[in-house]
Amino acid sequence: MAEATKAKAVKAPKVADPMEATMEPATQDMLRRAQKLGIDTVFDRAVTMKPCAIGMQGICCKNCAMGPCRLPLPKGGIDGEDTRKGLCGATANTICARNFVRMIAGGAAAHSDHGRGVAETFLSAARKSAKDYSVKDPARLIQIAPYFGVATTVEEDGVTKDRDIDEIALAVAEKAVREWGKPELTASYIKRAPKPLQEKWEKEGVVPRNVDREIVECMHRTLMGVDQDYKNLMKQGVRASLADGWCGSMIGTDLQDVMFGSPSPLQAEANLGVMKEDHVNLIVHGHEPLLSEIIIAVAQSQEMVDYAKSKGAKGIQLAGICCTANEMLQRHGVPPAGNFLQQEFAIITGACDAMVVDVQCIMQNLANVAKCFHTKLITTHPIAKIEQDNVIHIEFDEHYAMEDAKRIVKIAIDNFENRGADVMIPKQRSIQVAGFGVESIQYHLGGSFRGSYYTLNDNIINGRIRGVAGVVGCNNARTKHNEEHIVLIKELLKNDVLVLVTGCSAIAAGVHGLLTPESAAVYCGPGLAEVCETVGIPPVLHLGSCVDNSRILLAATEMVKAGGLGDDICDLPAAGSAPEWMSEKAIAIGQYFVASGVYTVFGYHMPLEGAPVFKDYLYKEMEEIYGGKWDCEPDPIKHAHKMIAHIDKKRKELGIDKARERVLMDMADRQALGIE
Amino acid sequence: MAEATKAKAVKAPKVADPMEATMEPATQDMLRRAQKLGIDTVFDRAVTMKPCAIGMQGICCKNCAMGPCRLPLPKGGIDGEDTRKGLCGATANTICARNFVRMIAGGAAAHSDHGRGVAETFLSAARKSAKDYSVKDPARLIQIAPYFGVATTVEEDGVTKDRDIDEIALAVAEKAVREWGKPELTASYIKRAPKPLQEKWEKEGVVPRNVDREIVECMHRTLMGVDQDYKNLMKQGVRASLADGWCGSMIGTDLQDVMFGSPSPLQAEANLGVMKEDHVNLIVHGHEPLLSEIIIAVAQSQEMVDYAKSKGAKGIQLAGICCTANEMLQRHGVPPAGNFLQQEFAIITGACDAMVVDVQCIMQNLANVAKCFHTKLITTHPIAKIEQDNVIHIEFDEHYAMEDAKRIVKIAIDNFENRGADVMIPKQRSIQVAGFGVESIQYHLGGSFRGSYYTLNDNIINGRIRGVAGVVGCNNARTKHNEEHIVLIKELLKNDVLVLVTGCSAIAAGVHGLLTPESAAVYCGPGLAEVCETVGIPPVLHLGSCVDNSRILLAATEMVKAGGLGDDICDLPAAGSAPEWMSEKAIAIGQYFVASGVYTVFGYHMPLEGAPVFKDYLYKEMEEIYGGKWDCEPDPIKHAHKMIAHIDKKRKELGIDKARERVLMDMADRQALGIE
Repeated sequence: MAEATKAKAVKAPKVADPMEATMEPATQDMLRRAQKLGIDTVFDRAVTMKPCAIGMQGICCKNCAMGPCRLPLPKGGIDGEDTRKGLCGATANTICARNFVRMIAGGAAAHSDHGRGVAETFLSAARKSAKDYSVKDPARLIQIAPYFGVATTVEEDGVTKDRDIDEIALAVAEKAVREWGKPELTASYIKRAPKPLQEKWEKEGVVPRNVDREIVECMHRTLMGVDQDYKNLMKQGVRASLADGWCGSMIGTDLQDVMFGSPSPLQAEANLGVMKEDHVNLIVHGHEPLLSEIIIAVAQSQEMVDYAKSKGAKGIQLAGICCTANEMLQRHGVPPAGNFLQQEFAIITGACDAMVVDVQCIMQNLANVAKCFHTKLITTHPIAKIEQDNVIHIEFDEHYAMEDAKRIVKIAIDNFENRGADVMIPKQRSIQVAGFGVESIQYHLGGSFRGSYYTLNDNIINGRIRGVAGVVGCNNARTKHNEEHIVLIKELLKNDVLVLVTGCSAIAAGVHGLLTPESAAVYCGPGLAEVCETVGIPPVLHLGSCVDNSRILLAATEMVKAGGLGDDICDLPAAGSAPEWMSEKAIAIGQYFVASGVYTVFGYHMPLEGAPVFKDYLYKEMEEIYGGKWDCEPDPIKHAHKMIAHIDKKRKELGIDKARERVLMDMADRQALGIE
Repeated sequence: MAEATKAKAVKAPKVADPMEATMEPATQDMLRRAQKLGIDTVFDRAVTMKPCAIGMQGICCKNCAMGPCRLPLPKGGIDGEDTRKGLCGATANTICARNFVRMIAGGAAAHSDHGRGVAETFLSAARKSAKDYSVKDPARLIQIAPYFGVATTVEEDGVTKDRDIDEIALAVAEKAVREWGKPELTASYIKRAPKPLQEKWEKEGVVPRNVDREIVECMHRTLMGVDQDYKNLMKQGVRASLADGWCGSMIGTDLQDVMFGSPSPLQAEANLGVMKEDHVNLIVHGHEPLLSEIIIAVAQSQEMVDYAKSKGAKGIQLAGICCTANEMLQRHGVPPAGNFLQQEFAIITGACDAMVVDVQCIMQNLANVAKCFHTKLITTHPIAKIEQDNVIHIEFDEHYAMEDAKRIVKIAIDNFENRGADVMIPKQRSIQVAGFGVESIQYHLGGSFRGSYYTLNDNIINGRIRGVAGVVGCNNARTKHNEEHIVLIKELLKNDVLVLVTGCSAIAAGVHGLLTPESAAVYCGPGLAEVCETVGIPPVLHLGSCVDNSRILLAATEMVKAGGLGDDICDLPAAGSAPEWMSEKAIAIGQYFVASGVYTVFGYHMPLEGAPVFKDYLYKEMEEIYGGKWDCEPDPIKHAHKMIAHIDKKRKELGIDKARERVLMDMADRQALGIE
């Protein structure tokens, strides 16, 4: 008895099984190391803390102080009328829809605030008050100016001349910042969508007015006693999501391209193994390139490299985490050290001299992990500080960007000599080609005459490419790290589906070797392999960060314009996916894809199970309105096949299903059918 | 054994005890009737559904899909370091602050959307495209114009003339609508606050830029992995609340006064007993006077009265619920039928021919209750529909206000003949005097020479009035209906504290007979009674709806200006309270009071118990920054004495505590002390 008690007392704390937690070997190694050192990581907490079962079902309402009210489904489901209600009478549908709309509001607010920050910095740059930013891609500026009603030419003495680029920049910037709060009540970028889609939105009354207003109205309508009709609530959810995807995020991406250059394909490495023992390792984590662009410039300056050498390092190794990684990668080839679930491990290498963060997806536990090593954790954004007292805050001001960045890089360099003996950098690093944009896809896959998406469409029509999938979104410690992304993407490739990736999904694809042209031969079905090999592109195209999901919307629009695949995005043989979603941003993204006509499948789970009628609305009825709908499938193989089935359905509706069958037939079959 | 089983099987469903549920006899009677008829009301649901204990403590985080994470306090509290964290590492402070800031965002969004609606309608009226609205109070318009930078005079041939009122209206309207999204980054109305307060806000970096932006930034900062420092999070919470109180709500109140007239004291009845068996009973419930003002005009028209008579009714009885009741009361003397927790019972009388609702605090269960009677439940606002199919939606369009209102009133009249035999209208109705505004307090309590708050201040300085309390906010089915309001207010009166009320607190005060000049003699201490009797006002002043809490801010500012009570709102012997709060709006209101320097006590509970450090920040440290702080006390007597203790502390700091003591002393004592 005494023995048993003792055994219980010394029982080791519950920790994650590295092989179950992640499919990625470097992360497995680091997790083992963390556990050995007694450092608690997100994977361990996922084992020790259970999520609230009722909250997971989406039917906990804490929107007033008579609650939180919880409406769990009775075991065995609803028998007859669903009489569950909160104190005020809110039904499961109302509660679940409220929660869903508030998730959209949170996600759209984050992306659009990012976009707003970019627009405001661009305005400062155009006004010449942020001297470290300028127009790097004038062609892109000229391309987007008309959507803001800004002229790109001037008439002088009856002659049409190009307008001064600084003038265009200022005019665009002044218009752009107004998109968040203007009273004119139609977001300007909406007209970039295919006409039939715009008409659907108008008919449904979901055309966004301006970005902020739609988010605020989400909050109002989800308040106790306001909107209590889930369909009406979702109208606002849709409107806010469109304000994100087709406005806040899209303007963000565009102006980032204008200021920092539009991405074009480049080669780089990926994974924790990019960190170097003999270099100063500076990890930049978060989302906004406003910070990382300047840090790159500073870290690559001779002054800083010399300074690092003076401190005994061979140089400065920059690497990114999360979407900052994607931003630095797509424009500069700076390697990602990992995605969301790897952030703690970059520090646990013991070789991270400084981690600098801005906004979104920054785990507060980084502060606790940093305490166990010499790592300096530096917050930079006024809206994102961290409570723990070992965190340094250096506020990044766009007007003094270079000075601020220098301070940060110096802290990393000065900290190099403070490293402990306990450095352990995993060996794993992979090669990738990243940095595709709407224009580079056009260039690589487009027709040489028409300079459009014609060749892509042609290969879809002739069936070599079965369809296109956007695989995006986060990691989630409740699923096996990277596995849903990778298994899913491989299954899509095998079935000749071209995959576009962004965010942490893009980093997963890079880390696991799917972003190389060579991977086509390994993973793709014969049709897709043929196209990729001919063109020389990877079968998985890295389109950037989460905010850059707007690139996928525009790529889809270009496909519609190029012809032959219907009149609207919903006609395309295409589907969307976020297999390991975690952030509310994913819900906002998912909703703008659905409302743009895309069948969108999420992995893990959706917080909808407690409200089956509302769930049906999202999973079925919504398709009748917008052409797209939600779905959820945790198993990545089934998940892929749901997407493929949808692609095949669209091929059939387009009358190109026979063409697709052709690819699978041999020559004799073809001749028998009299085709070609 | 079989007997016992049987007994269990036929056990009556759990229902509320009417005597425990509410202190208000009409509501008790109606609750008994509802239970007899088998109709489930909010009071019964409060018995059958338990609130989530962890959610109530504020430490459930569902802001990402790795959760919901729950951080309950260990039994016996924290022993040593608080190591609780969510999957991402979010501490209890982070989680609790996130939830708190999102409550502020919800509340501010609701009020400010209301204000925006008013501003937009005012713009339509100024542009003459909403013909049923006009400027009813030009003096008020001229008073507020300068805050928008709008001139009220013009120079003509060297002579200064009054500017055309229509011109002023249009200029003000155009400026006003911009306050929600303008890029200039300082809300215009902020300059209405006392200078020292403005300086505090500037120093702290919490001056609101525009209304929408602050709410959106709340959503961004509370997203997973953004702001993880509760003090920094609360800066944004404060900023959003100030955008509500000193901008969205305040502009709403002002423009309502301009369009519908500033309230001045008038007499009316209150409680469910105002409904009449032989009249068409039309109940208007919700918040925005844009609807109710027009309904009043239509219901009082000879055409509609004749139509009602043609259907066998003696007339049309209008009555209000919630803040619509306050709006109709303060400007027209239309009686309130009750406050938040009485809404279901207006239908349960069986005499409600139609209930018309707009936004906020509308229980979805009204639809279920209406099904049990002949009542037509009519939603009118595009952003607030109700799922159940017995609800009629008539969208109210400001451009066709009169036509829409007529349709609504006609539905009520046409439904009169469909009443069942089961009409039971409670007898209880009380008399009240309501409709005080900043100006009418000035008129009634102001000095005759200075036309200011001088006399009020003088009576505070001389100690007849000990101090001023704002008692506001909702009902909550988790507390005894109206009891916290009434017991608290009576205790304040007994201690010579003048009470200002708004919202459901104001309705409670009216229903329970505290809004009459005669109540002064019954409930007040000698000093307050003397002042009220001399001036002829009630000791509890009805200042309007929830949005009108901005009137309390301005009244406090006027007190500061009148002199003798310090330089800032935080110097005043004043306190705020929401004893039965329920809506997120109450949190937004509470926060703008606290950040304006007011000690603000909430009843029932605050969702902060799980994060003691964050709670301390709100309850203690915040006072050092803003001069005001939060507190919570469920017992209404203790609650009153916390407020009184604060008032006494402020009197002492002002050096007027001796004067206060004087009132309690007899002449001999005075002479002994050599005072006067």
